[in-house]
Amino acid sequence: MTYCIAMRLNAGLLFASDSRTNAGVDQIATFRKMSVFEAANERLIVMLSAGNLATTQSVVSLLRQRIGGEAQHLMSCKSMYDVAELVGRTVKEIFARDSASETLGQGVDFGGSFIVGGQIKGESTRLFRVYAQGNFIEASDDTPYFQIGESKYGKPIVDRVVRMDTTLKEAAKCTLVSFDSTIRSNLSVGLPIDMLLHRADSFAPAEPHRITADDPYFNTLRSGWGEGLRKVFAALPDEDWFSK
Amino acid sequence: MTYCIAMRLNAGLLFASDSRTNAGVDQIATFRKMSVFEAANERLIVMLSAGNLATTQSVVSLLRQRIGGEAQHLMSCKSMYDVAELVGRTVKEIFARDSASETLGQGVDFGGSFIVGGQIKGESTRLFRVYAQGNFIEASDDTPYFQIGESKYGKPIVDRVVRMDTTLKEAAKCTLVSFDSTIRSNLSVGLPIDMLLHRADSFAPAEPHRITADDPYFNTLRSGWGEGLRKVFAALPDEDWFSK
Repeated sequence: MTYCIAMRLNAGLLFASDSRTNAGVDQIATFRKMSVFEAANERLIVMLSAGNLATTQSVVSLLRQRIGGEAQHLMSCKSMYDVAELVGRTVKEIFARDSASETLGQGVDFGGSFIVGGQIKGESTRLFRVYAQGNFIEASDDTPYFQIGESKYGKPIVDRVVRMDTTLKEAAKCTLVSFDSTIRSNLSVGLPIDMLLHRADSFAPAEPHRITADDPYFNTLRSGWGEGLRKVFAALPDEDWFSK
Repeated sequence: MTYCIAMRLNAGLLFASDSRTNAGVDQIATFRKMSVFEAANERLIVMLSAGNLATTQSVVSLLRQRIGGEAQHLMSCKSMYDVAELVGRTVKEIFARDSASETLGQGVDFGGSFIVGGQIKGESTRLFRVYAQGNFIEASDDTPYFQIGESKYGKPIVDRVVRMDTTLKEAAKCTLVSFDSTIRSNLSVGLPIDMLLHRADSFAPAEPHRITADDPYFNTLRSGWGEGLRKVFAALPDEDWFSK
């Protein structure tokens, strides 16, 4: 599986993805699930992917290959809405091609889904979730984040912490804690984590961070969080459940 | 959906279940998902159920109705292993009856699964997970707990806290925190919670506890845990993610 999360906050955007890909538990590999497209001082587009790796890789490869062509492409889209629509259209194209009737699909799930976000000069930051069916929704002030893949283990801490006015530093901290919970409880999500932060309206060159098992900050968070949880838990009162 | 958890610890057994049943989000009802069978000083059997309510209710009703009959029944089983096998057999019987060809199933998932545990005099406490297919596994020292239903949100805290030597009080505390995380993140799991604790080798009458929204202990845990988490989170250091 996969775990990806992205947030659209007042301060800017955050994107993070794990890098484990597996077919069953015996074919595990590391693949980057974050793709970045940027034009200096003009646009930043980030895509996170989950689902069938052949589908999502093809979608990203085609989107990249078509840049500069005559048809609408990622660098010519006038808005992030158009970007989301283009990604959705490409998802449908690949799904139709790969699940074609020649092989009857052979029981394989060809679905792939994306989180797509970024900023194009003239617009504010925007964030979309593109479904395997190619349709999509946009993040709002009420729901400033999207998750794809193994999202449940790491959702409680995000629900408790993340609001529109959360800073990017806090959001990054919360994201890494959320990944820690997920990685501990689910074999199919694994390090390294790719993370990218974008300050709203700054079109500075994107700086993706790769967080590996020996990253000192991540390890400080892991041990501090685990220890802190145990202390909070121990400090909670006990109840006497038996009448005698 | 449903969230149920049960643990087999050195100190004894814990069972807990929520009570929300839904078909979509607009048909929500409250049903007890915990069934208790006991014979004074001789046996305690507890069942937690998830999945198709018609299936799980029928399984429990038939198991209860058949007590005292000539065929093997819950009160005549010689071991908890035989109890698990009987529950599994009844699951298969109901599934076969209700998913019958007359209606072609109409797209409904008739599957229902159970956690079954307890103690029969002469044996130690035992805990089983019975799948919708009727086969089953037993909890071991390495994995002292089972969850069914919406298990992922509440799994991280259980993974951090529960070991074979966890006391029943700690286990109950951890269970309620695990339910709190689940209820906050998932609409389909709801209060009240039914919880039952059994001290190993004590065949005292079972005392099921029903934890409602105004239960003072549960509310102390909820607020203490939420506040504690926020404090631990705030105390974790920030990282400077931007090079300039």
